[in-house]
Amino acid sequence: MAQTLMLTRTTSHSLTEQLAERFASRIRDRLLLPGARLPSVRECARQQGVSPYTVVAAYDQLLAQGLVEARRQRGFFVRDAAQKVQQATDTSRHDAINSEAKPPAAGRAAVLGEGALDAGSQINATALIRGMFHQASSKPQPGSGVFPPDWLETPFLAAAVRKVTGGPMLHEHSLKYGEPKGDPQLREVLAQRLAAIHIPVSPRQIITSVGATHALDIVSRTLLKAGDPVMVEEPGWSVEFARLTALGMRVLPVPRRADGPDLEVMARYCETYAPKLFVSVSVFHNPTGYCLSPGSAHRVLQLAQRHNFHIVEDDTYSHIAPEYAPRLSTLDGLQRTIYVSGFAKILAPNWRVGFLAAPPELVEPLLDTKLLATLTTPSLLERALALCIEQGQLRRHAERVRSRLEAARARSVKLALAAGCRFAAEPAGLFGWVETGVDTDVLAQRMLDAGYLLAPGALFHASRQPCTLMRINFATTQDAAFWKTFEKVVWEMR
Amino acid sequence: MAQTLMLTRTTSHSLTEQLAERFASRIRDRLLLPGARLPSVRECARQQGVSPYTVVAAYDQLLAQGLVEARRQRGFFVRDAAQKVQQATDTSRHDAINSEAKPPAAGRAAVLGEGALDAGSQINATALIRGMFHQASSKPQPGSGVFPPDWLETPFLAAAVRKVTGGPMLHEHSLKYGEPKGDPQLREVLAQRLAAIHIPVSPRQIITSVGATHALDIVSRTLLKAGDPVMVEEPGWSVEFARLTALGMRVLPVPRRADGPDLEVMARYCETYAPKLFVSVSVFHNPTGYCLSPGSAHRVLQLAQRHNFHIVEDDTYSHIAPEYAPRLSTLDGLQRTIYVSGFAKILAPNWRVGFLAAPPELVEPLLDTKLLATLTTPSLLERALALCIEQGQLRRHAERVRSRLEAARARSVKLALAAGCRFAAEPAGLFGWVETGVDTDVLAQRMLDAGYLLAPGALFHASRQPCTLMRINFATTQDAAFWKTFEKVVWEMR
Repeated sequence: MAQTLMLTRTTSHSLTEQLAERFASRIRDRLLLPGARLPSVRECARQQGVSPYTVVAAYDQLLAQGLVEARRQRGFFVRDAAQKVQQATDTSRHDAINSEAKPPAAGRAAVLGEGALDAGSQINATALIRGMFHQASSKPQPGSGVFPPDWLETPFLAAAVRKVTGGPMLHEHSLKYGEPKGDPQLREVLAQRLAAIHIPVSPRQIITSVGATHALDIVSRTLLKAGDPVMVEEPGWSVEFARLTALGMRVLPVPRRADGPDLEVMARYCETYAPKLFVSVSVFHNPTGYCLSPGSAHRVLQLAQRHNFHIVEDDTYSHIAPEYAPRLSTLDGLQRTIYVSGFAKILAPNWRVGFLAAPPELVEPLLDTKLLATLTTPSLLERALALCIEQGQLRRHAERVRSRLEAARARSVKLALAAGCRFAAEPAGLFGWVETGVDTDVLAQRMLDAGYLLAPGALFHASRQPCTLMRINFATTQDAAFWKTFEKVVWEMR
Repeated sequence: MAQTLMLTRTTSHSLTEQLAERFASRIRDRLLLPGARLPSVRECARQQGVSPYTVVAAYDQLLAQGLVEARRQRGFFVRDAAQKVQQATDTSRHDAINSEAKPPAAGRAAVLGEGALDAGSQINATALIRGMFHQASSKPQPGSGVFPPDWLETPFLAAAVRKVTGGPMLHEHSLKYGEPKGDPQLREVLAQRLAAIHIPVSPRQIITSVGATHALDIVSRTLLKAGDPVMVEEPGWSVEFARLTALGMRVLPVPRRADGPDLEVMARYCETYAPKLFVSVSVFHNPTGYCLSPGSAHRVLQLAQRHNFHIVEDDTYSHIAPEYAPRLSTLDGLQRTIYVSGFAKILAPNWRVGFLAAPPELVEPLLDTKLLATLTTPSLLERALALCIEQGQLRRHAERVRSRLEAARARSVKLALAAGCRFAAEPAGLFGWVETGVDTDVLAQRMLDAGYLLAPGALFHASRQPCTLMRINFATTQDAAFWKTFEKVVWEMR
């Protein structure tokens, strides 16, 4: 549902109701996290162009709905729905309204995620993902992590689906559990695809999963137990930090450089904590777009050998990368590397088909974890995907998407530079890592008012520290209207 | 692939090769677990009707393939593939072959699962599930946990699939992530279905999952952390024990009686360990077929109230149960109960569609866990299922399956009693809990030689202790040939 962008007197709802509903929906969608502070009454009135009285009335509604609580002298804060916090008293409400006189120590107006710094809990961390599924408006969403649906349209998907759902095939793929490792035909073509990117592997070493996310989950659950240290690239994708944290792992962030992870930091971690696993995106790293250099790949593997840790290589962007892109799994030949990828970025995000390819001795333990978590996976969708790959259609489609992305990237980069941004990393792949000069947590909230979802830099840091970077999706930032709004908001913030 | 049931000289493979391959395939399929002892050479020769020389040669092949190891004076044991055990020496091989003179302390010939008692590790525990996906032969499988595919055939599945994959619907359910909580239409009809079994719930409280197994996984990951104590009914389904153990939880087995869990044991656990969760199957409990009594339900909820634990009620057999069957969720109204179910037992096991319905304050934390594990789930299959439910077709199909099951149960019970079995629980639902009078671990291995997969009682105990019970599937035990073979093997074992 598209969000009301401007509060307006012409609707059937009062301004108070509209304002309260806007905050309520952000709280429900976790774009305002538990513990986050609402803007002060004065600030909110100014931003929304309404009277302070309207804001106080809206905040009162949120209070009555139990969505926020008033803290004495500090303001209004989003409640944690899971904890039955005691209702705020009228006294503290009064103090909260007048809190502007005495701003709290951490007096930033930033909302998205500020609470995470306080608690560092699973809920606050994982809540950050919600925004990625939140359709802020019908406009192209710069913070989105996937291609717009129309980029993924193909004529062959329907044909493949018809084949697997026609006649006896439908029953074959419905009425009895599939093979534990996944559809054999898909695993066969995946082995061929991996051979094409120079990772020789037997179909027996491949296990399908509910998207690449599930494959990464299977790997961490198999190789690690609660309390184990694990190295993860930073910046990196917040789902990874959140999942490992939720599983009770100790996340060791490894700075990601242009040519690979910071090896000195890794070596220090190895000596101090003896981590068992390193989670890495070699090609078109999210959010920077960096690609691993061959030399760096070699040194990472040497370190892994010396300190006896495994590596899980997340190759989610594989289909938009050149075949010759250096990958750890290629050099290593799946000795201590587990390769993970999926199809959400190129064909059918909603089908949730991913997979892992593992060293022979890890296959059975990994399969055990898959069985415990989901038993098998739907072979109907897996087989349809196999048909798309097998006939070369997916490869040709991926080539088309790559060309289109290149053109989009060129346009997007030009617009970003014109809007006063700087690229913190050489633009490549799907994402741009952009220096805005302003706090992107605050920026993200302001842009949401205008109907745009951003991916602020804090999303990509284990510590959630606010920063001035943001990730843009090149496919969804070719629109001059977005950059115009962006410039205006940044200008206001300065 | 159907397994060779008898070793025969007429094939192109030697008897040695055939015997070695039979053991190798059981080891690969985890029907012989790491740490399990192979039968002694003499015993194996007698069972298979071959010379001891053939057995020694076959064991040598397994040794060379690294599948087994020889332990001095004890015999041959299945190696743990994950651990790179040092190759056994020739000396210990010699001793192992001659181990009959000095039988090991735990000298049972039982194979399936004996290793689990030694290690109690995740791998050994989870390995037990593999058998359930193993097609021992083309015969009906008494140990199977699902209906035979032909029982699930319906004319309406294809129509529903055509609807969701035709025209723009296919792209709608493919090219962009579905809603995090799952397809809204499915959640809507599920809420109606739950209302029909007297569990009033809003679609907002429902989250879809990759089968009921995944829903149970989401619940344990959300409510528990490593080391937490959790109560689970015993006997119970091994996947549950294995998953909780793999997550590092402390499993507290609660004896399941005819009318419900043993409340005295639960009360003691509560006082000593303060567990946070109780995992329970109220209706047609697996493996016994027991149904919870209303009084017992009330007392379980009182205990939960007093000791402040949550309950996850696994209602996997919901579709073959009468609507009025007492459920904890019905009495409790989803205050501290989380309801879990799925469609693997009635419509499309391979689609892996399940769901949970939770108290309002747990919905967001549970959704966080789902997102971390798989992001969303495939809405294409969810929507197709919604269509099947919505039009009443699933309900009518379930009625037909119930009638057919009743007739099958009557036949199966008669045959079982005639074969000398006794029912440890009043026959009801899909499964019979049968007293055989012999060690069912041993029985299961012998019956596998004849092409039948059994579910030995040890599968259903947290400790994997061998016992004389087994679970039978009423839908797959109407065949007089099976019971004839069963009688013969039991007679040989006595």
